[in-house]
Amino acid sequence: MNALEMLKKINAMAEFNRWCGIEVTVAESGVVEIQMPWRPEVGQYTGYLHAGLIGALIDTACGFAAATVAGPHLLAANFSVNCLRPAVGQKFIARARVVKPGKTQVFTACDLFAVDSQGEKLVANGQTLLTVLAA
Amino acid sequence: MNALEMLKKINAMAEFNRWCGIEVTVAESGVVEIQMPWRPEVGQYTGYLHAGLIGALIDTACGFAAATVAGPHLLAANFSVNCLRPAVGQKFIARARVVKPGKTQVFTACDLFAVDSQGEKLVANGQTLLTVLAA
Amino acid sequence: MNALEMLKKINAMAEFNRWCGIEVTVAESGVVEIQMPWRPEVGQYTGYLHAGLIGALIDTACGFAAATVAGPHLLAANFSVNCLRPAVGQKFIARARVVKPGKTQVFTACDLFAVDSQGEKLVANGQTLLTVLAA
Amino acid sequence: MNALEMLKKINAMAEFNRWCGIEVTVAESGVVEIQMPWRPEVGQYTGYLHAGLIGALIDTACGFAAATVAGPHLLAANFSVNCLRPAVGQKFIARARVVKPGKTQVFTACDLFAVDSQGEKLVANGQTLLTVLAA
Repeated sequence: MNALEMLKKINAMAEFNRWCGIEVTVAESGVVEIQMPWRPEVGQYTGYLHAGLIGALIDTACGFAAATVAGPHLLAANFSVNCLRPAVGQKFIARARVVKPGKTQVFTACDLFAVDSQGEKLVANGQTLLTVLAA
Repeated sequence: MNALEMLKKINAMAEFNRWCGIEVTVAESGVVEIQMPWRPEVGQYTGYLHAGLIGALIDTACGFAAATVAGPHLLAANFSVNCLRPAVGQKFIARARVVKPGKTQVFTACDLFAVDSQGEKLVANGQTLLTVLAA
Repeated sequence: MNALEMLKKINAMAEFNRWCGIEVTVAESGVVEIQMPWRPEVGQYTGYLHAGLIGALIDTACGFAAATVAGPHLLAANFSVNCLRPAVGQKFIARARVVKPGKTQVFTACDLFAVDSQGEKLVANGQTLLTVLAA
Repeated sequence: MNALEMLKKINAMAEFNRWCGIEVTVAESGVVEIQMPWRPEVGQYTGYLHAGLIGALIDTACGFAAATVAGPHLLAANFSVNCLRPAVGQKFIARARVVKPGKTQVFTACDLFAVDSQGEKLVANGQTLLTVLAA
């Protein structure tokens, strides 16, 4: 099973990811892309993407990127998110990468883009530090 | 309109909060509590509360706490979350407080508890830095 | 050797801590206090305590708090600092505590106070996530 | 006065930066590089660069990068640091960039490299969120 197949399988097992409509679109060693369409249920009170979902997309993409180098037995220890611009778009793309792999922890980073008819715009970035669980 | 009424109204306007079943249970000056019941749709692939929702609860409670001192015109600039223990419970309670109010930014912090038949357990904590929008 | 003696010894071995004049004043299980006097060399360009030293005090106090529960073989993986108010005072006191101990990682938090003739004032807070090194 | 001259001047005014031996080596719009030589006084108890100085270098480089787009009247609100590898080297280079400029706040990011006879190695990364002070 290659990385993309592994992540699609994990993604399908997470009920929240299914509800959100998150799809894994790219997965190579240390690099992952996921996408999620806009719909009103992911909005906060002014109609932007809810900060919780900004965090969910960044944390999910980071975790998947880590899984491509360390396998699926990982838990997020800390994640941090910067909301750079109002997150408004027809869909959202999170691109994550492994910054530093390790036996016990994996450092990752992620950029989140909003996509509309004008193209992509960086709306948030963040990072996740994951702990590798003992087998 | 008192703080609790204001926050219940904002909470009801956020579609994501409604989908999650988030309720505002306490709101005083600088202090807020929100609750959310467990259901499978908020889970990640092993059945714990999804880290994205841990972040959503912490960010939402922090934003509401900030609103009690600075009004509702706020945007999260940065938030950070520590996942301390597996988040498993029948419901989740986020308790947030204002650490430092200000004219242009508000610093907040939050503890997240999982509740089951044995009582409450601290499962995550975090913080949000909010920017006060010009009127 | 009790916790305070252990930490005083580690503190004396760190050249940077000696240069700064950092002293360990309290050490109990999971709780530590350190102090540092103001002098011009710790200032940034407007004469406040340099943000780097705010971070150094918070990170050092957090690491010492972790050492009281997990021993001295620890490395900071991530630390985060909020600068709440201009850090101006005759001395600075950092009070750290363990939020969640663990076999592989320890979560900690810290408040930093500036002290002058009027008393103590909270000027910064922060957190450190430490990794426990294998023996 | 160009950006490099402005930053060299600010750097020379900060007593802590002078003590550390920090030099500004590159400054363009949104991009800055600073360097600091190793010496025992910047070490922690095992002889690595002290985490406080890792933070100081990252925070300083981020603040200088922000100053190239927003001028010198800035205060760090939050900074976060990841310690990726033991920071051991003959000198250290911090390269910072502006991620998102703004009227009231500037988001920045930084990589920190240790340099020895074998070349450069990424040892830490981090970010700083700065508040623009009213004139």
